[in-house]
Amino acid sequence: MSYIEELGKKAKLAAPSLAGLDSGKKNKVLTKIAEALRANKKTLIGANKEDISNAEKNGMSKAMLDRLEINEKRIESIAQGVDKVISLDDPIGEVIGGKELANGLRIVKKRVPLGVIGIIFESRPNVTVDAAALCFKAGNAVILRGGSDAINSNKALTDLMRNALKECGMDENLIQLVGDTSHETANEMMKLNRYIDLLIPRGGGSLIRTVIENATMPVIQTGEGNCHVFVDESADIETAVNIVDNAKTQRPSVCNAIESILVHEKIAKEFFAALDKRWNGKVEVIGDEKTSQNIKVSKIADEEDYKTEFLALKLSSKVVSGIDEAIAHINKYGTGHSECIVTNSLKNADKFQKEVDAAAVYVNASTRFTDGFEFGLGAEIGISTQKLHARGPMGLKELTTYKYLINGEGQIRG
Amino acid sequence: MSYIEELGKKAKLAAPSLAGLDSGKKNKVLTKIAEALRANKKTLIGANKEDISNAEKNGMSKAMLDRLEINEKRIESIAQGVDKVISLDDPIGEVIGGKELANGLRIVKKRVPLGVIGIIFESRPNVTVDAAALCFKAGNAVILRGGSDAINSNKALTDLMRNALKECGMDENLIQLVGDTSHETANEMMKLNRYIDLLIPRGGGSLIRTVIENATMPVIQTGEGNCHVFVDESADIETAVNIVDNAKTQRPSVCNAIESILVHEKIAKEFFAALDKRWNGKVEVIGDEKTSQNIKVSKIADEEDYKTEFLALKLSSKVVSGIDEAIAHINKYGTGHSECIVTNSLKNADKFQKEVDAAAVYVNASTRFTDGFEFGLGAEIGISTQKLHARGPMGLKELTTYKYLINGEGQIRG
Repeated sequence: MSYIEELGKKAKLAAPSLAGLDSGKKNKVLTKIAEALRANKKTLIGANKEDISNAEKNGMSKAMLDRLEINEKRIESIAQGVDKVISLDDPIGEVIGGKELANGLRIVKKRVPLGVIGIIFESRPNVTVDAAALCFKAGNAVILRGGSDAINSNKALTDLMRNALKECGMDENLIQLVGDTSHETANEMMKLNRYIDLLIPRGGGSLIRTVIENATMPVIQTGEGNCHVFVDESADIETAVNIVDNAKTQRPSVCNAIESILVHEKIAKEFFAALDKRWNGKVEVIGDEKTSQNIKVSKIADEEDYKTEFLALKLSSKVVSGIDEAIAHINKYGTGHSECIVTNSLKNADKFQKEVDAAAVYVNASTRFTDGFEFGLGAEIGISTQKLHARGPMGLKELTTYKYLINGEGQIRG
Repeated sequence: MSYIEELGKKAKLAAPSLAGLDSGKKNKVLTKIAEALRANKKTLIGANKEDISNAEKNGMSKAMLDRLEINEKRIESIAQGVDKVISLDDPIGEVIGGKELANGLRIVKKRVPLGVIGIIFESRPNVTVDAAALCFKAGNAVILRGGSDAINSNKALTDLMRNALKECGMDENLIQLVGDTSHETANEMMKLNRYIDLLIPRGGGSLIRTVIENATMPVIQTGEGNCHVFVDESADIETAVNIVDNAKTQRPSVCNAIESILVHEKIAKEFFAALDKRWNGKVEVIGDEKTSQNIKVSKIADEEDYKTEFLALKLSSKVVSGIDEAIAHINKYGTGHSECIVTNSLKNADKFQKEVDAAAVYVNASTRFTDGFEFGLGAEIGISTQKLHARGPMGLKELTTYKYLINGEGQIRG
């Protein structure tokens, strides 16, 4: 049995001990974890320093080094994340359906944990605790596979969580870290459908595609957001500029930021003039010919540009003949995340919401609202861009399944 | 673009035309399909005769020939299946959640179609119409890939359904058959995640495993049922015999029939005596040493036997020391379908339902009840043995997803 299979087996064996545990006991473990995070800041920062120093030697960029770093403030914020998970309602045990059949059988449909969840993620060490806490509260064992850059930080964080489990008399294998960060082991992990019930990749497009193409267990795609705003003919110009500006510039590096605008030809001149005035060159525009007649573009947009998630102060732009072209463009290039129409036409608002195939379809509001907290889920493990099981922001409920409990007095089928 | 990619593209392009269609129009198409089935019995039987004659030449077994055959009575039953789908509530458009945020944004969570569903199935031609009708009613385009043995029957059935679509002014590519039944094309179909939103294999274990290992889109595993009855120490002997007999012999070839019994050692002697009296050799028992001391076994059971779905008048048996051993055995060898405890202990009933990891967990009732009709879903496209998206019997709702519609008046995120 290989290293990663061992982890899988241990997780599978540990999972049932958590499935029936009441919220009080789960929260006790989480409280211990939050306490331990706050009490062991020095150890965690020491481990993180090793990662930082290795990364510097390997020539990691400033931006990436910043993502990798944990300091006192960030540890406090990780601990607060755990506090938040403690405060969430426990989804397990909820009765979500049921009936009594004519033959007297009583059926109850009850929410239960999935079992074992695997998370494959990139450098940010805060994901380690965040994902583990959410999986744990939803009653699942978790196998965390972070990036090699953060291995020392991740080990320190995981040791601390496993210790909390042990102190509470729980099986420490409910939270495991993949210590071997080789690609071979990651690929092997994607084939562990015997032990892992759900695999969630958290990271860039190439990680997500690798997981989708190779995993043999169910996967939830998260976080790819090629989002659009369509400025319709009847749009209020100020509203359109406010929304485009907010959705592009308020936090350009996140998945619910927009990457592209589509502008009705009849309003293009007026809209671009107002946008240009607002941005004044702050955002690089890659546009089609017609866009370039209205605002300065850095290049003429091609197919590739319309596919690109810039995650920066940069966006693609196209002038369209109407709502049908806009919807077709979005359904072709979009990633099914968040899409917006700015319009005053009720007919077009309805049509857009009906025909655009995405998790969140907005009328006259910024795409930046697609978020577990904003949607009232309390927390999120990611934003699903696929249609099965979970779509859009995923909270604790999306980390569960259900089972049917059927009680009778000897009923047999005739 | 390859043949199968063409089909995928056509389905993807056709799907939106169905997404917004009201129930009345969908039922009109289905009514036309049911009428056409009844009006074209001769053509359908003629096409089926070609398949039967080819199959006979290839030496197909009697049992398989029977599954392949369609006759007047079976066509009527297929048409009645369509009538049933017409009578089902349309799941599309249902509002399943929503709220108004503090900033005035209105969020509505609405049920919508998945888009394009692929079905890969084996010989039975009735699946062709059954699956197409369910996918259609739930608003999805469907790509059907049946076995090569049934290709002529499937073509005739699909032509008839596509014709009905055309007559109603709908895009006929909402229902497509994969005409090329080569393995290469099937493998290519499993990689079409760009066009197919969900792939459902309907058939034996080896088909299901091939799909799970190769598909790049979400898959729902259906129909593998290695189901058990555990006869607990406190079981009423007559109830236990009734349930074991019904679950094994009422229809041995289906997935919710049991394949294995686990018997508490303290009740083994009495239970097996009663079972032996009931069956009198009718069912072949493959048992462990202790079983063999109580009832005639055809061989001593090994690991392989405990993993086997016999789908025949044959089952494996093991005498266990108690409920913990029974649960561990089930969680090791079961396929997560349907499991049953026969007991009079409330404590053990609860424990069994809590700890057994399966879609349907029974206390004192036959596993044969796990079924879309029995559970009140009206119809089923299969019984899911995985935990994501759908678990247990899958009805129309399980062929849908949801999207969030968010309406505002220019709200931006601060």
